[in-house]
Amino acid sequence: MTELITAVEAHDIRFPTSRHLDGSDAMNPEPDYSAAYVIVRTGGGQEGHALAFTVGRGNEIAVTAVESLAPLVTGRPVAEVLGDLGGMSRLLTGDSQLRWLGPEKGVIHMAAGAVLNALWDLRARRAGKPLWRLLSELSPEEIVDVVDFRYLEDALTRQEALAILRDAEPGRAGRRARLLAEGYPAYTTTPGWLGYTDDKLVRLAKEAVADGFGLIKLKVGADPAEDVRRVRLAREAVGPDVRIAVDANQAWNVGQAIERMASLAEFDPYWIEEPTSPDDVLGHAAIRERVAPVKVATGEHAHNRVMFKQFLQAGAIDVLQLDAARVAGVGENIAILLLAARFGVPVCPHAGGVGLCEMVQHLAMFDYVAVSGTVEDRVIEYIDHLHEHFTDPVVIADGRYVAPLGPGGGGEMHPASRAEYAYPHGPRWTADAATVTTGVTTAETGEVA
Amino acid sequence: MTELITAVEAHDIRFPTSRHLDGSDAMNPEPDYSAAYVIVRTGGGQEGHALAFTVGRGNEIAVTAVESLAPLVTGRPVAEVLGDLGGMSRLLTGDSQLRWLGPEKGVIHMAAGAVLNALWDLRARRAGKPLWRLLSELSPEEIVDVVDFRYLEDALTRQEALAILRDAEPGRAGRRARLLAEGYPAYTTTPGWLGYTDDKLVRLAKEAVADGFGLIKLKVGADPAEDVRRVRLAREAVGPDVRIAVDANQAWNVGQAIERMASLAEFDPYWIEEPTSPDDVLGHAAIRERVAPVKVATGEHAHNRVMFKQFLQAGAIDVLQLDAARVAGVGENIAILLLAARFGVPVCPHAGGVGLCEMVQHLAMFDYVAVSGTVEDRVIEYIDHLHEHFTDPVVIADGRYVAPLGPGGGGEMHPASRAEYAYPHGPRWTADAATVTTGVTTAETGEVA
Repeated sequence: MTELITAVEAHDIRFPTSRHLDGSDAMNPEPDYSAAYVIVRTGGGQEGHALAFTVGRGNEIAVTAVESLAPLVTGRPVAEVLGDLGGMSRLLTGDSQLRWLGPEKGVIHMAAGAVLNALWDLRARRAGKPLWRLLSELSPEEIVDVVDFRYLEDALTRQEALAILRDAEPGRAGRRARLLAEGYPAYTTTPGWLGYTDDKLVRLAKEAVADGFGLIKLKVGADPAEDVRRVRLAREAVGPDVRIAVDANQAWNVGQAIERMASLAEFDPYWIEEPTSPDDVLGHAAIRERVAPVKVATGEHAHNRVMFKQFLQAGAIDVLQLDAARVAGVGENIAILLLAARFGVPVCPHAGGVGLCEMVQHLAMFDYVAVSGTVEDRVIEYIDHLHEHFTDPVVIADGRYVAPLGPGGGGEMHPASRAEYAYPHGPRWTADAATVTTGVTTAETGEVA
Repeated sequence: MTELITAVEAHDIRFPTSRHLDGSDAMNPEPDYSAAYVIVRTGGGQEGHALAFTVGRGNEIAVTAVESLAPLVTGRPVAEVLGDLGGMSRLLTGDSQLRWLGPEKGVIHMAAGAVLNALWDLRARRAGKPLWRLLSELSPEEIVDVVDFRYLEDALTRQEALAILRDAEPGRAGRRARLLAEGYPAYTTTPGWLGYTDDKLVRLAKEAVADGFGLIKLKVGADPAEDVRRVRLAREAVGPDVRIAVDANQAWNVGQAIERMASLAEFDPYWIEEPTSPDDVLGHAAIRERVAPVKVATGEHAHNRVMFKQFLQAGAIDVLQLDAARVAGVGENIAILLLAARFGVPVCPHAGGVGLCEMVQHLAMFDYVAVSGTVEDRVIEYIDHLHEHFTDPVVIADGRYVAPLGPGGGGEMHPASRAEYAYPHGPRWTADAATVTTGVTTAETGEVA
């Protein structure tokens, strides 16, 4: 009997992180790190897990979107679905009615990404391999088959992508061995949240260096004088040889970005991340011209491969920061890795949040083994939050991600955690309802209605 | 006692338009024109109406998004809200948790637009004026106060916007009188749907000319030979002096768009609309260079003012097609009108769908009276669908929109229509469930699961 996909479930899971200002930045003063958590179930009793990451309110919209996509997948034969995940991607992002809600952006696209990532997780589990290994053992033809080249051909054709992958093929085995032995470089954002005191910033920055990190990141974009003071403190704490990236989380317009970076130049920032609107390709290009040699980085909010194509075509970025859960899953992220390789721009994935480190490490490791073939100037973001809730939490040793060996894509959360943080009826949300941030808080006023 | 906003309701309303292939195009073979319909209620018993337009499946996601935004508005004093709709816009699009779902794009942004448009409708009703008139009687300062200039300043500052509005001020009264006497030019897409037979195409094209339209639009983007044949038929039907626009609804990549337009050049198309991905600013610029003198048009899926800014900065479009229900409502559309005026690009709004004609005419008429000051090469799309469901349906006479005189923004639907087409429990959806398209149809395969 043909094994079918029997269910695509969506669960609303939220962590009350706003209570301690973990994750606070210029645009996200009080996030409650959350997940629209997806479980794909098969008739044979197997499961695939993944999630769309949000920062609290609105997680219910992402849950609804997953539920709206579920009928496109449920009832199909497992082998057919997992054997053509490129086709599934086109199905989920191309549905003639649902695509009006994007197209290929925002909630509907994040939900499609979560469903597709859960299917990739299922495929890797069935193969008994970590996702990075499954991907880096596919043939170049199998890899390009999962990529949707629509709208990309003026920058990257299927043939050009195949050539990149074939060039990297002979070195795969050697790099795989090296990855397993040495891991993949990481950087840490843990010291840099806006809400932290100076003492905490300095202490965590020094700890990061002691832990082997060669790059730390600080949030900027609130008060300009505070930015200068905090970046100076960090530079004094880590010394001249550790890279310091700064992240404005979209707080500035083009002119402000140029001006503010001039005032930080003396502290030798390595990159400026999200200096302005994530939609503003031309704005990033204008900023990049003026802030060099500081690098310009963006990508965690770039909503699809067409945006990344343009950031690269316009010479707008030095560092490409893809996210595991913003675009349409593994397939679209492979398209983005191939675009980056084509333009010679290093990929330094965005992570943190809920499970983003666990998921995105697989993409970076696949990139190293089978696409770009290098880790030079490449680092995966690491933030020490919420890993304990995952069945296969990331392991960091001496400032590097240790390559995961367990099967799957990394996005599975412990059942106990899922139950405890279920929103709004899980015990963490009902037990101390008085302090729960279900109310309405605005970025503008901090006013609670 | 202070009058408060007492409710922001969201209703799921769908019309089974797919049964007759009205609205069929290269990317939307079977749309069910739908609305996430918003009603804002006040303690004094007044109402504001507006909607987010969708094409069927997924309308429930937009409804959920409106419900998620509702607590930001409900309970606030009416006078405070309506007196600072610029502030409300920043509140709804800038909420520190909800904005992660965009930012400023997709479902959450469309939902914010629907709520904001309902508030503008309420404000116009309380003033006893049609929205176009209310807007065009505001002072330049009051107008720029509703605009969010964030991320725009490298192309348009508040001062530059004020200068545009002040330049237009002396001519307002004359243009208002002329608008009331002559209406605003329209064009029609009614003949051009892909699903129509040749006979129907020719008959409707001739009727359009007889009805006074100087521009008709045809859908293209499916089979290339069919496109040539259909555009030839239309040209033969309308003669050499009527403009024919073509609309590919994003079906092509950059190279295909250039090639296909070369094959249509002999029929003198006026503009090519949505030749490729609506996100591809640089792609549109490349296409525009190669298809001139055919104009390049886009905008119905451009998700916010930052995208329009770039289309203009890059010289990527000749015709800007804003939509009443895609961006964050009246305020963001005023920003877009001001950008277009700054760059000297004519605005020809997208309409059709459900209530889009009724709503967008107010923006074009405001533009004529108080911003661009001209109707030259400007036309509002007109499609003869579903107007009967609105309390103040558009009136077309001799190929022109007659300026509406009733109070409000045009988005109110008859209560009987709302009840009849409520989804999924209204009588239109329960009475003939056998033919209802709640199933899953994909653009790729036409397969119904």
